[in-house]
Amino acid sequence: MGDVASSPVSSSVPSVDATARAIEFWFDFGSNYSYLSMMRIEALAAARGARILWRPFLLGPVFRKLGFDNSPFVLQKEKGAYVWKDMERQCRKYGIALTRPSTFPRAALLAMRVALLGAHEPWIGAYCRKIMQLNFADDRDIGSIDVVSEALDALGLPAQHLIADAQSDANKLRLREQTEAAIAKGIFGAPTFFVGGEMFWGNDRLEDALDYCHSMPASG
Amino acid sequence: MGDVASSPVSSSVPSVDATARAIEFWFDFGSNYSYLSMMRIEALAAARGARILWRPFLLGPVFRKLGFDNSPFVLQKEKGAYVWKDMERQCRKYGIALTRPSTFPRAALLAMRVALLGAHEPWIGAYCRKIMQLNFADDRDIGSIDVVSEALDALGLPAQHLIADAQSDANKLRLREQTEAAIAKGIFGAPTFFVGGEMFWGNDRLEDALDYCHSMPASG
Repeated sequence: MGDVASSPVSSSVPSVDATARAIEFWFDFGSNYSYLSMMRIEALAAARGARILWRPFLLGPVFRKLGFDNSPFVLQKEKGAYVWKDMERQCRKYGIALTRPSTFPRAALLAMRVALLGAHEPWIGAYCRKIMQLNFADDRDIGSIDVVSEALDALGLPAQHLIADAQSDANKLRLREQTEAAIAKGIFGAPTFFVGGEMFWGNDRLEDALDYCHSMPASG
Repeated sequence: MGDVASSPVSSSVPSVDATARAIEFWFDFGSNYSYLSMMRIEALAAARGARILWRPFLLGPVFRKLGFDNSPFVLQKEKGAYVWKDMERQCRKYGIALTRPSTFPRAALLAMRVALLGAHEPWIGAYCRKIMQLNFADDRDIGSIDVVSEALDALGLPAQHLIADAQSDANKLRLREQTEAAIAKGIFGAPTFFVGGEMFWGNDRLEDALDYCHSMPASG
């Protein structure tokens, strides 16, 4: 899970064959189960020759559309109490670090906008992992411009430039549109995966989604 | 998954060592993910030398206590639509038959009372599997006395006698108390497993719960 400090922004194509079978990965940096998938998906996808299509979206508007004004893990205290025990056990099982964030769920609008901006860039995976680790392992405020800058700096990326682009009206609009697209696709939580029109919800279905992906005929 | 038609009610102890490590299996016959666990738990537990403690409880009062007047799979139509796709895929993966029940969730009060009555009997596993199959594979109305009788008959059990006992005031009260106990333990859905005080929620955690069970020192 090394960073790409030595490979700053470049125009080279990702190493995975662009014609490979693809899995759409819909995630929000505030989502704890998205964290588990984020730390696992690249290795699992690579092992199956699957290409990842990165789909950052805002879970807050999705929950509001469903009638919830916060995460179900906050609104339902019994479920919320359970979830962090489950997270501890799951992280131990997968060998993933965990510090329960002092704020949950963390709003991460800027970080999400940067993710959308970089969704097709070679650094997207490393950036997303970095932001997730800052939130769920280091308990840092990923909603702040300082922490997003720090993440980009650590990857050798031009933080100031990327943040300015991420905050352009066009990019802000694209994130709203991507969130509307999530709702239109029937997404009700995160992470959610799509493979050839089939929807898989939750980190617990990541392997199933990738196996399904692997079973499809290659497109090219 | 053979029935026990050839082994009617007997006073013999279950074949699993009574001092073995134990897993509490909290379930409701109306719960689709409880169905997946019901069809899998006995073989998985046996492979790990774990004893099953059968804990039927009523999910309806638990949901009402949490502020829901029905299953979340009914109240949230997006999640509901997804769940049956997920069930199809999960059943295919596990080799479990599935017909989406024409009524969901099915109330199964009498069947649940019989399960509570038989929780310590050697026929409990076969009975529970039979009821679940009638609901989720055969789309039969497991809420009816006829179908419960049929299930007991098929297992060579004295249906009329057991149903009368199940409907005694004492047994009815015990099921209410068991449901209160579920709420007191923080249960918010089904299936839920407890192993040595650790709670595991959902069919997706059955293997984890049993592995945890297996890792504990034997009590006798």
